[in-house]
Amino acid sequence: MKLVTFKTTAGEQKTGLLTETGIVDLAKASNGQLPSDMLTLIDQYEHCAPILNGLLDARPDYELAEVTLLAPLPNPRSFRDYVAFEQHMLNAGKTFGHAVAPVWYEMPIFYFTNHQAISGTGQAIARPPLCRKLDYELEMACIIGKQGADIKAEDADDYIFGYTIFNDWSARDIQGKEMGVPLGPHKGKDFANTIGPCIVTKDELNRYRTINDRFDLRMTSKINGQLICDGNFKTIHYTFGQMIERASENGVTLYPGDILGSGTVGWGSLIETNFTAHRPLEPGDEVEFEIEGIGILKNMVI
Amino acid sequence: MKLVTFKTTAGEQKTGLLTETGIVDLAKASNGQLPSDMLTLIDQYEHCAPILNGLLDARPDYELAEVTLLAPLPNPRSFRDYVAFEQHMLNAGKTFGHAVAPVWYEMPIFYFTNHQAISGTGQAIARPPLCRKLDYELEMACIIGKQGADIKAEDADDYIFGYTIFNDWSARDIQGKEMGVPLGPHKGKDFANTIGPCIVTKDELNRYRTINDRFDLRMTSKINGQLICDGNFKTIHYTFGQMIERASENGVTLYPGDILGSGTVGWGSLIETNFTAHRPLEPGDEVEFEIEGIGILKNMVI
Repeated sequence: MKLVTFKTTAGEQKTGLLTETGIVDLAKASNGQLPSDMLTLIDQYEHCAPILNGLLDARPDYELAEVTLLAPLPNPRSFRDYVAFEQHMLNAGKTFGHAVAPVWYEMPIFYFTNHQAISGTGQAIARPPLCRKLDYELEMACIIGKQGADIKAEDADDYIFGYTIFNDWSARDIQGKEMGVPLGPHKGKDFANTIGPCIVTKDELNRYRTINDRFDLRMTSKINGQLICDGNFKTIHYTFGQMIERASENGVTLYPGDILGSGTVGWGSLIETNFTAHRPLEPGDEVEFEIEGIGILKNMVI
Repeated sequence: MKLVTFKTTAGEQKTGLLTETGIVDLAKASNGQLPSDMLTLIDQYEHCAPILNGLLDARPDYELAEVTLLAPLPNPRSFRDYVAFEQHMLNAGKTFGHAVAPVWYEMPIFYFTNHQAISGTGQAIARPPLCRKLDYELEMACIIGKQGADIKAEDADDYIFGYTIFNDWSARDIQGKEMGVPLGPHKGKDFANTIGPCIVTKDELNRYRTINDRFDLRMTSKINGQLICDGNFKTIHYTFGQMIERASENGVTLYPGDILGSGTVGWGSLIETNFTAHRPLEPGDEVEFEIEGIGILKNMVI
């Protein structure tokens, strides 16, 4: 199923089930049994799942056009971002004139990003004042549903709640400068992490699962309607299971509502062609990401 | 004043005021007006401050030896760690055979670390199973008390709640390997962030403030009772004000309960002498950090 967080015209924030014909208000349709806050719903998912399943044929309370979608999980507990697509590494290496580091092939590599700078589809994204090389990154993200540490890749599906689309907005000029000290990106990527439009629960997305635990899902990016990237999630090198195993190693606890970003699909950022496929993003540009089976994440740069 | 989070022998978690003679139970002494959770106290500090001030002469409810101190803020909202001491950069550069990157002198550099792996004084720290180069880092940390974005350094004191000691445990072998991909440290530093023993409110620590906005505070580390590092916070290159300005640039919001680590004081980690001043930490080693005006943070490696 597809779950959303939305705001009504009266300004109320609610959780909903996104159907073909509209949005079912979860709290209302369940007579208050389901929470109107997504993090609580994820925390209590074992209790909520049967109630949710009983709502699959419920009549929508709102048409999609009537409400404002917010980030489906506006307050993740943490946000790790990986770099798990080889083509992205190869392309970035070409831009910067270096080979892929051998260690990349040994383990999934990540960094912690700003889990308190979350936005959703439709929200305007402000280009940092001094940035002149604004970029996007087309990623899929996985949302943890169950607490655990030292989780093995083969058991990881038990710990997953669902998936969403992730735009890891990147100020390449700020990032390039600060990474002169080798502690990784921070101000270049801390101003906006956009997720949405919905969370697709794992049972639904697992229909697209390949025999080697990837997903056969087309991933595209468009700028002002022009197709830029046309990739597929199945090209990923590391599975989310392997990423979860790595994150939870050494007794590190993952919590419900933690997010793991996949890293950018090959050609899913403008830096990969050194901005020759498209100039840096500018105020007024509209960026549209689509992942098959999830939906469309669309934002305007301001 | 010095604020603590502690556990009673009955297993209750409480907030307390640490005095010369013991601990005042904040909720009890205030007839339930003060919360027994530090994050709530920080969130409601404007309301809590006058009530707290009325308790400065209250009779302690517990002797220190009767209770178990926990991390004073067990659940920070986020954790940024800086590298703001030049001597640490110079020493690390010597170990690894490189100069300090020029950009380090241009802006405070940080990374996001794992705010969900928090421990306090007295807690045992597990060396990651594959780690054979376990290190510590002696830092001071600043806790944010008020929400804000685009905060200027000169206004930053308004946004500070208080200060604590921070041990940024570091698995140097894991860190050195993963940083082959330039996204910074992650598994090398995500397993344990120890803070404590208390939070000293800014009004109290500001007594040690120098005219150039540093603090004149001796910082020492000991391993099994042997003095290893004998530094002073006033040697820091960037002030917490400058770090707050950097963190909150580009409209990035800081929240009450966010933590900013100062980075390691010069000679405050074993990597700075490439483990010649002391071998890597091993199970059974006791690490003791002291910062004047704050207290002692002591942990055993297991």
